[in-house]
Amino acid sequence: MTPVPAFAGQPLDRADHIRTDPARLAAARRGGLLLKLDELLPVLDDDDGLTWTDAGEAPADAELVFLGLLEDRAAFAEVPPRGDSGPAYAHRPAWAEVSRLSAPELAIYGEARTMLDWHARHRFCAQCGETTRPAKGGWQRDCPACAAQHFPRVDPVAIMLVECEGQLLLGRQSRFPRGSFSALAGFIEPGETVEEAVAREVFEEAGVRVTGVRYIASQPWPFPSQLMIGCIAYAASLELVIDKTEIEDARWFTRADVAEALAKGADSASFIPPPTQAIAHDMLQWWLEQES
Amino acid sequence: MTPVPAFAGQPLDRADHIRTDPARLAAARRGGLLLKLDELLPVLDDDDGLTWTDAGEAPADAELVFLGLLEDRAAFAEVPPRGDSGPAYAHRPAWAEVSRLSAPELAIYGEARTMLDWHARHRFCAQCGETTRPAKGGWQRDCPACAAQHFPRVDPVAIMLVECEGQLLLGRQSRFPRGSFSALAGFIEPGETVEEAVAREVFEEAGVRVTGVRYIASQPWPFPSQLMIGCIAYAASLELVIDKTEIEDARWFTRADVAEALAKGADSASFIPPPTQAIAHDMLQWWLEQES
Repeated sequence: MTPVPAFAGQPLDRADHIRTDPARLAAARRGGLLLKLDELLPVLDDDDGLTWTDAGEAPADAELVFLGLLEDRAAFAEVPPRGDSGPAYAHRPAWAEVSRLSAPELAIYGEARTMLDWHARHRFCAQCGETTRPAKGGWQRDCPACAAQHFPRVDPVAIMLVECEGQLLLGRQSRFPRGSFSALAGFIEPGETVEEAVAREVFEEAGVRVTGVRYIASQPWPFPSQLMIGCIAYAASLELVIDKTEIEDARWFTRADVAEALAKGADSASFIPPPTQAIAHDMLQWWLEQES
Repeated sequence: MTPVPAFAGQPLDRADHIRTDPARLAAARRGGLLLKLDELLPVLDDDDGLTWTDAGEAPADAELVFLGLLEDRAAFAEVPPRGDSGPAYAHRPAWAEVSRLSAPELAIYGEARTMLDWHARHRFCAQCGETTRPAKGGWQRDCPACAAQHFPRVDPVAIMLVECEGQLLLGRQSRFPRGSFSALAGFIEPGETVEEAVAREVFEEAGVRVTGVRYIASQPWPFPSQLMIGCIAYAASLELVIDKTEIEDARWFTRADVAEALAKGADSASFIPPPTQAIAHDMLQWWLEQES
């Protein structure tokens, strides 16, 4: 079965026709919901749910992003006043809050976080340097000087399981907790397909050539704005040449190693698997479920 | 068989270790090749090949992007002095040149075009408005004022065949040549998977719900910087509600219609198919080759 990763399963109806209609957008704001955040962190209620206030009470000059319709009520989030002041991925308090959200609320939070972070770090026109203005309910920023239109970024990342002789290649970066290994990954660059990016990244990081790249599943990752594209690829050899400037280590793990890691987590003797919110975790689970 | 679309099959070795090594980069430039362009258009030689000059002869202040190694010689392209002055997709002269290139040279040109266009339209820091400086052989721009790092954009787009009762849903925009139909498509937004983007776009444009989304193939599209992610999806009904603000028309086509269109092109009675350089063309061919 195709995995459904965390941050997927968006319950919001994006209702893009409202974005482009200033009158409907204003009405939606008057009667809408506003996501309560502490900088870019969610503020949870007693039941570990997202908290909402009244969008109509936000100051007229507050920059609100229209996230979509939540059961026919418009949902908004407010761009923080200056810069990206939110915690980066793996900042522990952020991770603790996020891991308590239900799957649908995680998807709402993910969309909101990516959008707010984009606005906060893209207030100026990359083409001419002028201050830009939000447009279309926050799904665009327009430059009043050179008329350039700017859109939220989504950066595609290839993330891959590499298999050889029934074993799986996983790697670790020095910033990972001790004993943690995960799927190799890298940003897809201009001028390459998903499959070419997979082969290039594996060769760059681990020095091994792969073929037969296949797509498994994808995930929106909001730290800050990746589209994780999960694949499997097959190596012809177990011999590795690790590029220590890219990763700290990479090793082959058996099916038993992977099964133990997923079952026991940090108590595993083989390796600590990626967190359940990461698509790499779903990909490992998917791999175990395939015919061996 | 998985299609290999135009602009894929990059012959350049990206050699990213050279990007991060100023001394090697300088040496590569002294002995390197420089892609000859007329603004963002390729300049072809008598055999319809790309033309190269000597990168070492470029002025010291020329902004060169390191494209990669072409048979052990470093290949560069120069950022045009001001703005994006190149022709947009479907500008006829551009299309005529591009359609004469071989597959590997098309991939080189595509990478170069996306990179140059990005530099030309991203000379300023989106975070603070200051003028940025190219870094890492052109794979980054750094802000001297706020220290932000900026990377080339790759915008993922979902493009999809929609099947129902053995027929295929294709649409057209008003800017398409008369009689042309192609796969529906749209940018993947923050907070959604590839599969969710496919379902959303089909519903927005054609008012029909789809399930069973499957990945087919991907393509880097350099006008200006898309990653086309080709999928197939299945509709439960042939009934359409077309959003005329998004597309001009959408219709169901039979297998015979699609076969005739691909075989006869503009002479087809059913519809004019997308150009062979578009992944939509490969996807239609792929669909015909599937078991019916």
